[in-house]
Amino acid sequence: MQIPNPRIRLLTTTGPDRIIDPIVRLNSLPMSTDTLKIRRIAIDTYHENVAYMHRECGIYRAEGFQALSKILVSANGAKVVAVLNVVDDSSIVLPDQLGLSEQAFTQLNVAEESLVTVDHAEHPKSMDAVRRKIEGERLSQDDFIGITTDIAEARYSKMEMAAFLVATGQNNLDRDELFYLTRAMLQSGERIDWREPLVADKHCIGGIPGNRTSMLVVPIVAAHGMLIPKTSSRAITSPAGTADTMEVLAEVNLSPDQMHEIVRKERGCLAWGGTARLAPVDDMLISVERPLGIDSQGQMVASILSKKLAAGSTHLLIDIPVGPTAKVRHMRQALALRKLFEFVGDRLDIHLEVMITDGRQPIGRGIGPVLEARDIMQVLQNDPDASTDLRQKSLQLAGRIIEFDPDVRGGQGYAIARDILESGRAWAKMKALIQAQGAKPIDLHAGKLCHEVYADRDGFITNIDNFQMAKIASLAGAPMLKRAGVDLFKKLGNPVKKGDVLYRIHAEFPADFTFAKNLSAQNNGYTIGGDELALTSLIAF
Amino acid sequence: MQIPNPRIRLLTTTGPDRIIDPIVRLNSLPMSTDTLKIRRIAIDTYHENVAYMHRECGIYRAEGFQALSKILVSANGAKVVAVLNVVDDSSIVLPDQLGLSEQAFTQLNVAEESLVTVDHAEHPKSMDAVRRKIEGERLSQDDFIGITTDIAEARYSKMEMAAFLVATGQNNLDRDELFYLTRAMLQSGERIDWREPLVADKHCIGGIPGNRTSMLVVPIVAAHGMLIPKTSSRAITSPAGTADTMEVLAEVNLSPDQMHEIVRKERGCLAWGGTARLAPVDDMLISVERPLGIDSQGQMVASILSKKLAAGSTHLLIDIPVGPTAKVRHMRQALALRKLFEFVGDRLDIHLEVMITDGRQPIGRGIGPVLEARDIMQVLQNDPDASTDLRQKSLQLAGRIIEFDPDVRGGQGYAIARDILESGRAWAKMKALIQAQGAKPIDLHAGKLCHEVYADRDGFITNIDNFQMAKIASLAGAPMLKRAGVDLFKKLGNPVKKGDVLYRIHAEFPADFTFAKNLSAQNNGYTIGGDELALTSLIAF
Repeated sequence: MQIPNPRIRLLTTTGPDRIIDPIVRLNSLPMSTDTLKIRRIAIDTYHENVAYMHRECGIYRAEGFQALSKILVSANGAKVVAVLNVVDDSSIVLPDQLGLSEQAFTQLNVAEESLVTVDHAEHPKSMDAVRRKIEGERLSQDDFIGITTDIAEARYSKMEMAAFLVATGQNNLDRDELFYLTRAMLQSGERIDWREPLVADKHCIGGIPGNRTSMLVVPIVAAHGMLIPKTSSRAITSPAGTADTMEVLAEVNLSPDQMHEIVRKERGCLAWGGTARLAPVDDMLISVERPLGIDSQGQMVASILSKKLAAGSTHLLIDIPVGPTAKVRHMRQALALRKLFEFVGDRLDIHLEVMITDGRQPIGRGIGPVLEARDIMQVLQNDPDASTDLRQKSLQLAGRIIEFDPDVRGGQGYAIARDILESGRAWAKMKALIQAQGAKPIDLHAGKLCHEVYADRDGFITNIDNFQMAKIASLAGAPMLKRAGVDLFKKLGNPVKKGDVLYRIHAEFPADFTFAKNLSAQNNGYTIGGDELALTSLIAF
Repeated sequence: MQIPNPRIRLLTTTGPDRIIDPIVRLNSLPMSTDTLKIRRIAIDTYHENVAYMHRECGIYRAEGFQALSKILVSANGAKVVAVLNVVDDSSIVLPDQLGLSEQAFTQLNVAEESLVTVDHAEHPKSMDAVRRKIEGERLSQDDFIGITTDIAEARYSKMEMAAFLVATGQNNLDRDELFYLTRAMLQSGERIDWREPLVADKHCIGGIPGNRTSMLVVPIVAAHGMLIPKTSSRAITSPAGTADTMEVLAEVNLSPDQMHEIVRKERGCLAWGGTARLAPVDDMLISVERPLGIDSQGQMVASILSKKLAAGSTHLLIDIPVGPTAKVRHMRQALALRKLFEFVGDRLDIHLEVMITDGRQPIGRGIGPVLEARDIMQVLQNDPDASTDLRQKSLQLAGRIIEFDPDVRGGQGYAIARDILESGRAWAKMKALIQAQGAKPIDLHAGKLCHEVYADRDGFITNIDNFQMAKIASLAGAPMLKRAGVDLFKKLGNPVKKGDVLYRIHAEFPADFTFAKNLSAQNNGYTIGGDELALTSLIAF
């Protein structure tokens, strides 16, 4: 049995209707400690609001709050819900104060020393819907709006968000529910209106090291004149995100105003997406999904589409790489995911196309911010040594986006993209973007600590493990240390002789270096097979 | 893609095998801040370990820890995993210190100022099994042992526990998995061995206000000479638990040594179970289940059986009340739950019996610690006004437990229990228990603020809503305020005239009083029906 909000206490109460003993009434007058003074506690608790109350605080003792129960803090109509921590140190918080972590203080938005009242927080009402979902029910649009509203207003604790994510994970949402969830997430935050009929974007579902096509697609598409205000994430568990790599060349931490100005002038940008308050529920869910290491196709679709729609995109190209060590391992999974994107995208009125691409190995040569930036520069500058697969894939993606242009004939996008690249217009656009965002001194030298990994037999490269290569680059220090990473010398299908260099590990610090080398010694991520069989297995994929 | 522990840094590293620039090597020497000094932070974060690191701390900056990521703190072989909060106030923690919340400090168990190293904590390995469960797989005994070991060693965050609970909730565990989970939970903590062949216990799955049968069953069974070392919980969401009610009469907060001594002497006790470290995983899971408001039959079975087995019980009687406002609402659910208890209990070698009881209304008259204690005393003292249903139900339960005694003939238990009660031996035993635990001055007056709720028509009582009555008693202040609660004057089937008193609300503070009265005015929890139909509906149940 669950009794929400069992002990609400208000200052204004009507008198009892029958007083048996007036002395009792005196004792029962509200305590003077019914209000507390706000104190800002300089503790960063990330996405979770925390309130700190002294154990000797009258309210704590009277109300029987239990540590980690949630409390509702109210001041002049403003309210914030926070997890309660109990403090035994008056230098942190005094018995007549209520400490708030940075997040909670910012959200309540009143001055220090303001008087606040404290109550047991009701469980978020929408947790009823989460419980119904756990029991196997189908949820309605209103249910999802209730949930995303409560999450956006910080009424969910991390564990409640975890419960929601697990309850709606795997195949627990049908596609209508997924559409409802995506729409509710979209409605939870602001939405940019670029006031243009065609705002292009691209997104790769991730998992392929070195896959920095955005840094080529954006200059090509923007050079074509199409609006492509690209925001990207930093790497969380991978050795580089587009924001990390772009940061080697230019500032990426742009204010919304800066970004708008650059996009107006240059038709594109390559910014970090972390500052905008777009689809805030998505950020909050990701902050739980990531540490839990859970993600489902449904949540991926809702996350990507709500973010892109909030960013004002009207046309979106999704890249789904498929391969044995990619996020999506089988073509049938990729097709199912494509249908899901199409179903939800169509209902949310975004022009959406999906490209299923080769995800059998890393794209380009470098893995890690500086090494990837070097690959990008070689392609942009039409260097004959430029990575072929990075160039080809980027041109294909850019070509598909250019075909969103009603004036471009179907099938002509690739040729237009190639012309823009080969003519140097893409490189000129990239230079303009770098200049506009704030150029950094370009130094594309990889980490000085360098270890080469050699082929142990003759044959052909038959497999490169994306996951293992990413892990080696991460241990070497990427993306925190921009020069760290892995530089690949051989790709799938290449013939090798025993002793040929397969790849180089670059690091900046001895400890990282040792760890990366040790991991590579355990499993270097490459498989070398005999000629005939090797080639067959490539063709069979 | 998920890369566990991407940036491990050790103090002892082997040198790089190829130094290109010796200057780089100098720069890359481990920083002097690779160790931090432990500082105990007097913040009670409940079951979650929290570590506090200053934003200017060299390690935070170098390692790129993100707030709320988990860190592994190591000192002299001792290790503790904690959630990281980032502090901007040097009075809380200095840049060369690592603050630990009370929980984390106690668990690490080293002196303040001890040097510790900090690493990214690996995700608990057993989360892989949780993810497999989310994906619909069946887990093995080893999987569950991995999970409960990691939970017991505080490697799970609250959100990871929430993920586990939701993934294994509802019907997501088959009965073999439930058996594995229960056994793993049991193995996670200590286990009491009473060195007797028959250690009896009872447990009610809860949800029925006033259902304090343990306080009658224990003295009766102990008076029969059977060992019944009963520990009970305090109310969390209900208006009273057995520990709250017993506390009106005697101390319940006993040390394990005190409890053992009392049980040896008196053959029983009525203690609060919160101090023992039995089935600690159960406590930790409950600390997540309760605020989430989720509970599944499977988790209930695992929780109860692991606790009872850890407490050394060999014979257990489970009470499952069934009624429209009970936890279990249909007989078919009760039967399914019984089978589940039997299946797991048999495999864990406990003699287990289940009684399905009438859960259509509160048991006894009082709801709230003092009012319930009064009911108990009336039954024990053979007061002619004693509550009939409380007496009857307690005798039935006690009789079934007495029949665990191999020397008692089947069917004779009830008569033996009744003899013990009527002869005053139960009351004598209760007085001995109260004395042994530490008697309190007995004062069974209910709260002085009193409000009567009247019948609004003639007829028969056809329904009493357990949930609503519990809520009214909770708002009145129970169990925090022992004298608060509800005193029932009419029970199911009783004839009433308009204006008859249905129940009284007792409170100690005007605010609570007003809230309880207001809730009762909205819905007083009673249904009064016409005679014929009313009686039929009772029989039809």
